[in-house]
Amino acid sequence: MKKILIIGDILAEIMADSIGDGFLQPQPLTGPFPSGASAIYADQAARLGQPVAIISSVGDDDFGRLNLNRLAEDGVDISGVFVDPDRPTGSAFVRYREDGSRDFVYNIRHSACGYLHVNPAVRALIHSADHLHVTGPSLASPEFAALNLEAAETLRRRGGTISFDPNLRKEILPTEGLGDALSRMLVMTDLYLPSDDELTLLTDADETVGAVAELLQRGVRAVVHKRGAEGAAYFDAGRQFAQRAFPADEIDPTGAGDCFGAAFTSLWLRRMEPARALRLAAACGALAVAKRGPMEGASDLPTLEALVRSQAA
Amino acid sequence: MKKILIIGDILAEIMADSIGDGFLQPQPLTGPFPSGASAIYADQAARLGQPVAIISSVGDDDFGRLNLNRLAEDGVDISGVFVDPDRPTGSAFVRYREDGSRDFVYNIRHSACGYLHVNPAVRALIHSADHLHVTGPSLASPEFAALNLEAAETLRRRGGTISFDPNLRKEILPTEGLGDALSRMLVMTDLYLPSDDELTLLTDADETVGAVAELLQRGVRAVVHKRGAEGAAYFDAGRQFAQRAFPADEIDPTGAGDCFGAAFTSLWLRRMEPARALRLAAACGALAVAKRGPMEGASDLPTLEALVRSQAA
Repeated sequence: MKKILIIGDILAEIMADSIGDGFLQPQPLTGPFPSGASAIYADQAARLGQPVAIISSVGDDDFGRLNLNRLAEDGVDISGVFVDPDRPTGSAFVRYREDGSRDFVYNIRHSACGYLHVNPAVRALIHSADHLHVTGPSLASPEFAALNLEAAETLRRRGGTISFDPNLRKEILPTEGLGDALSRMLVMTDLYLPSDDELTLLTDADETVGAVAELLQRGVRAVVHKRGAEGAAYFDAGRQFAQRAFPADEIDPTGAGDCFGAAFTSLWLRRMEPARALRLAAACGALAVAKRGPMEGASDLPTLEALVRSQAA
Repeated sequence: MKKILIIGDILAEIMADSIGDGFLQPQPLTGPFPSGASAIYADQAARLGQPVAIISSVGDDDFGRLNLNRLAEDGVDISGVFVDPDRPTGSAFVRYREDGSRDFVYNIRHSACGYLHVNPAVRALIHSADHLHVTGPSLASPEFAALNLEAAETLRRRGGTISFDPNLRKEILPTEGLGDALSRMLVMTDLYLPSDDELTLLTDADETVGAVAELLQRGVRAVVHKRGAEGAAYFDAGRQFAQRAFPADEIDPTGAGDCFGAAFTSLWLRRMEPARALRLAAACGALAVAKRGPMEGASDLPTLEALVRSQAA
């Protein structure tokens, strides 16, 4: 089985129990939940039995231990996670508003996972992985962008593959150097996993057909367009098809896109027929939104297969 | 009325709802509460009608706004609080263990309040305050120690006074430069407010009588020894007496020592007779432990007076 590597964030997430605006009053909360887009992705891939390693940092505190315990227990290779004796584990407070949007209070950039520690364990992972998964936010700091680009180039020289989830809003694009890092990553990408209007984020075309044609022309082998409750669509040089979302009791959508991406990538690496991989990934997303906590809804393969079967019946 | 200045920490505090060990599982929490030893002290002094300003920093986030709203509402001068556009507001998660001790997860040193921004507003406060209150932890960073020492010297030259609460455990003393900063501050101290075994932290003597004699000889004018549930004791060159703790339903002792210190200092600055000031400060401590949240139990003067009267009756 191919081994996936991801370089990014590990966070503790604290969720408001009530719907409303922000954190201007003491209120009931629940947490800490293990979190971080990269950590969620790695955990979901591991739950499907895919070999996967994460390069990141946590603090020498309970929030770090909570995450490392969970990742290790679920089978993620954490040899590339540095335990920072000085900085705290990153954290995110999240509260849903009435309209479904979210308020956040973040501690990320100056937390442990805002800094890289390129030690021999990190080098060893870069030199042994088969596939690199990249998320847009992990290209926003020059240091992280450089390591992700270096890892991508190293893997590709060895015949490895790259998946890329931009996971960015247009407002963050002006970050210095980010646009350049995104473009450089895109030309090395085999599997591109944009959500909603991110499909046209890095293309000249501003609609689906043109954007997909442009991406495939630039060397992307497959595009999976994630559209939340509207399902997903798959495109490659010879095929295109849509997958409806599975019906789900939406409790907490945080992390669902990362679980979906991890499931599709893992199955794609196993050369599963794309329509079936997309169906299972959609099942994975539906299960992820139905549980509270960003990583709590990660599923194993028999669970995904059972949901797909029950829907077919 | 004399104006108090304090240079230190503003934090958001998140409390575990259940008693137990740490934060290794998601659990019910309540927060954010406005907090930070310096902020609690400033808020309690303001609630007693004492002019008081705090020099600190918060992030440009809801945790910072929560604190600034509370401090401003209660009458604290926040002109010296810098709103850091880059770093998050500091935070502390706290959970009580079965034995009454506490587990913490901190984000302080690399948070907004871990950094100083000595702008004209800060300079103006140092040059207009009548009294400086210093806490030991705010001497642990060389930058904060330097500003506190400079402010102490500036105030003393103008005839101002200094109160000093070491608020340190012996284990933190080896921090480079801290011992020196503590000694330099102690020789400028008028009112010394150690808790429990901190009384002998900076003395050669290792018992009460010798330690008090040594402190008074070094120039301290009055020592108030805070002993939690066992009450407090007052010592100066001519007097010494004890004050029993008021009976209290202890809900949350966090912040009670800061409230006690703020009350005693405020009343001492008004030249209140020390025995009466100590009684009112003890009442303030008892009210502080009876409310959940570090700053939620701060009281106004009529409330303290009513409690003292009810106990005398």
